Amino acid sequence: MDANPVLAEAVRGNWVENRHRGAFAVIDADGRIIASAGDIERAIFPRSAIKSMQALAIFSEHADEKFHHSGEELALACASHHGEDEHVTGVSRFLERMGLGVDDLECGAHQPTNPAARKALRARGEQPSALHNNCSGKHSGMLSVALAMGVDPHGYVEREHPVQKRVRAAIETVIGEPLSEDRCGTDGCSIPTFAAPLRAFAYGFARMATGQRLEAEQATAARRLFDAATAHPHLVSGTGHPDETIMKAFKGRVMQKVGAEAVQCGAIRDKGWGYAIKCDDGNVTASQTMLAALLLQFADPDDEQRRMLEALKRQPIKNVRGLVVGEMRAAEPFHGL
Amino acid sequence: MDANPVLAEAVRGNWVENRHRGAFAVIDADGRIIASAGDIERAIFPRSAIKSMQALAIFSEHADEKFHHSGEELALACASHHGEDEHVTGVSRFLERMGLGVDDLECGAHQPTNPAARKALRARGEQPSALHNNCSGKHSGMLSVALAMGVDPHGYVEREHPVQKRVRAAIETVIGEPLSEDRCGTDGCSIPTFAAPLRAFAYGFARMATGQRLEAEQATAARRLFDAATAHPHLVSGTGHPDETIMKAFKGRVMQKVGAEAVQCGAIRDKGWGYAIKCDDGNVTASQTMLAALLLQFADPDDEQRRMLEALKRQPIKNVRGLVVGEMRAAEPFHGL
Repeated sequence: MDANPVLAEAVRGNWVENRHRGAFAVIDADGRIIASAGDIERAIFPRSAIKSMQALAIFSEHADEKFHHSGEELALACASHHGEDEHVTGVSRFLERMGLGVDDLECGAHQPTNPAARKALRARGEQPSALHNNCSGKHSGMLSVALAMGVDPHGYVEREHPVQKRVRAAIETVIGEPLSEDRCGTDGCSIPTFAAPLRAFAYGFARMATGQRLEAEQATAARRLFDAATAHPHLVSGTGHPDETIMKAFKGRVMQKVGAEAVQCGAIRDKGWGYAIKCDDGNVTASQTMLAALLLQFADPDDEQRRMLEALKRQPIKNVRGLVVGEMRAAEPFHGL
Repeated sequence: MDANPVLAEAVRGNWVENRHRGAFAVIDADGRIIASAGDIERAIFPRSAIKSMQALAIFSEHADEKFHHSGEELALACASHHGEDEHVTGVSRFLERMGLGVDDLECGAHQPTNPAARKALRARGEQPSALHNNCSGKHSGMLSVALAMGVDPHGYVEREHPVQKRVRAAIETVIGEPLSEDRCGTDGCSIPTFAAPLRAFAYGFARMATGQRLEAEQATAARRLFDAATAHPHLVSGTGHPDETIMKAFKGRVMQKVGAEAVQCGAIRDKGWGYAIKCDDGNVTASQTMLAALLLQFADPDDEQRRMLEALKRQPIKNVRGLVVGEMRAAEPFHGL
């Protein structure tokens, strides 16, 4: 297998300590490749980077007509949230409105991603619940699909449950590729995740951004989801996270979503371009520097956006005493584009 | 730059999610390469993997004659310990015996690596001190060098301090390569770290294991350090860590030490072979699976050692609910050796 190029590197002092290879693609809704590096046909697990694609099932099963999801709830359905008060309250109300509760969530519990939220929970002597799970909004959205379909929500995370079949179909439609049991795993939150070519995810985001080559209902659904996510970056992410920072800074122009193991997907909406990045080794910080380099190159940032992205593209590495001893930075291939 | 081979991979379900490239070398004390993969001439930062080489300065400056370091203290000088009671007490007594205290340590404070020790500290409402820093034993050893030299210990972490010059010279002697300011950074514990070819570190461990091509005093010093480390694996590492597990299981036959950013160095002592591994992207778990594969191949494990190494070579990946959803495992190149 050919090696993907080094797209980020960690420097200590004056010497490169670590190298991070990867692939990326920027693609329009006609499938035309605007730019790419590495093997974009290699199938990757998109993980949480495609929550907005998974949320399309809310519309395809007409759960939106039954529950009239708010913009905040749609944002949470697309979210890897950080378990902050606003997230937990939002998901809790979302479930309540459907006559459901935390016990209906099958994502499992983990500590809030946000350090202050973790600390506050601990100070109150409380254990985290499934509400704090970064995927609880997505799971609430999936529960709304189950209720709209009139099926038993129990086991909605299983690959053979009607909800996951509909979610899978929604993804297949938008990426234009069949998903296969031959390239399938279980995600952190227990739902199935299917691997598909990196290129296809970038293409799917371009189609969602433009509505091109989608049926009218799908195009509307995609626009509502991207509108909701970019209008509520904090709900999709958490305080200070790059997804929040980028979507805030670009004021609706950029849809951006991280996925576990260093996947980054999104769309430069006004250009109609989708993008996808996967760092081969799963290093999230490395993938953030690649993402910053990509947006610097292709998202036409203004001065303020550029400053934000430049800071994301070169992140300091500190030692135990807090001294800056190096940096993680996007590597050469991005410079040459 | 040519890509190193994939030496470990993370599989989710039935598909490879992440790939970890790297290089390794197994070398004898004549510099003969027993086995290798990847670019072993590329300079890597050895980080904490060569604490036993740094500790040679204790002997070259005759600090051992002044302080008569115990085996436990020598083990701590070679350690990345986990901040458990035995480590903290050991380092504290080591310092006290030299008329020094925690305030003389310049490594900085961090939470104990061991989760139970972290929890106990928190339950007592205490903040971690420099004693809990995994490098506090190494720093105590360096302080003994300063006192033996009769120089002011203050600033002993700085590159230009006499202690670091002696530490650097000790490493240069044993690896047979000059270290250079052109390939230098600051380590997590604030001392300098110099990059050198991967091959040279494996060679240095072979020389330390055999005493070959070393002066008699150096050979004795090296043997005392490896004897101390392998006799006290818990002091060098921490409860349940692979370094502890491996050295316990091999009962003195294998010296093994991890370094930050996925370096693994050691020696198969009875064979007179040194080894060094660096995972290009700094993933420690990946480097552990590479280490296990290497020892399975070259350390002639008995049945019990083999079972332990097989478990280290394929480590389960669990999701939020604790379900096993994949594994990190050593990859093909090791199989073909």
